[in-house]
Amino acid sequence: MDSDREQGTRLMPKWDAAGLVTAVVTDHASGEVLMLAHMNAEALEATIASGEATFFSRSRGRLWKKGETSGHVMRVVEMRIDCDQDALWLRCEPAGPACHTGERSCFYRRIEGGALVRDA
Amino acid sequence: MDSDREQGTRLMPKWDAAGLVTAVVTDHASGEVLMLAHMNAEALEATIASGEATFFSRSRGRLWKKGETSGHVMRVVEMRIDCDQDALWLRCEPAGPACHTGERSCFYRRIEGGALVRDA
Repeated sequence: MDSDREQGTRLMPKWDAAGLVTAVVTDHASGEVLMLAHMNAEALEATIASGEATFFSRSRGRLWKKGETSGHVMRVVEMRIDCDQDALWLRCEPAGPACHTGERSCFYRRIEGGALVRDA
Repeated sequence: MDSDREQGTRLMPKWDAAGLVTAVVTDHASGEVLMLAHMNAEALEATIASGEATFFSRSRGRLWKKGETSGHVMRVVEMRIDCDQDALWLRCEPAGPACHTGERSCFYRRIEGGALVRDA
């Protein structure tokens, strides 16, 4: 355990081998988990500077501001980091659906008895 | 895009190169994000079968039932999966603190102006 990282007040993300941490985005108002994505150092800096969630797209290999094409930006109300600083929690105010499918949240199916069920 | 994976009712997790998916755990009652962890196929099966959150510990290289030593098990109220099936959302009823530091949530610090602040 790195006690400075766990107990301290210094932001020192524990980047993985690809230079990323995981970021979970929730709806500030409802608490619903909207999406999971990844950030590199540049994405984290951009998010802090702009107040709008910016990620690193692993598939496209580049910085990706959420809503850059859809307009569905995520305004960051609060950003938190976990004990070992390898995960971020962004409480956001979404300007539209988080999911590329048009669903409000990417988690639009629940697991029941080993199968997937959409909300009614 | 794999439309069966995104639109279908079949549980077909998209395991990463290490055979894992990310799992985010929230408190069923408060909506608070408690922790992030990883699951392999065996951990997911054990979680579905037992109704208690079981993960794969990357540091220990083995299955790890949350609370196996602390007693702070996470009873799963609902489990959801995201659009591309590489992330799980577990809504849980925690029997105690989620964090090994004794904090209720691993996300006990917020990021403010590039530094970390504990809740008062």
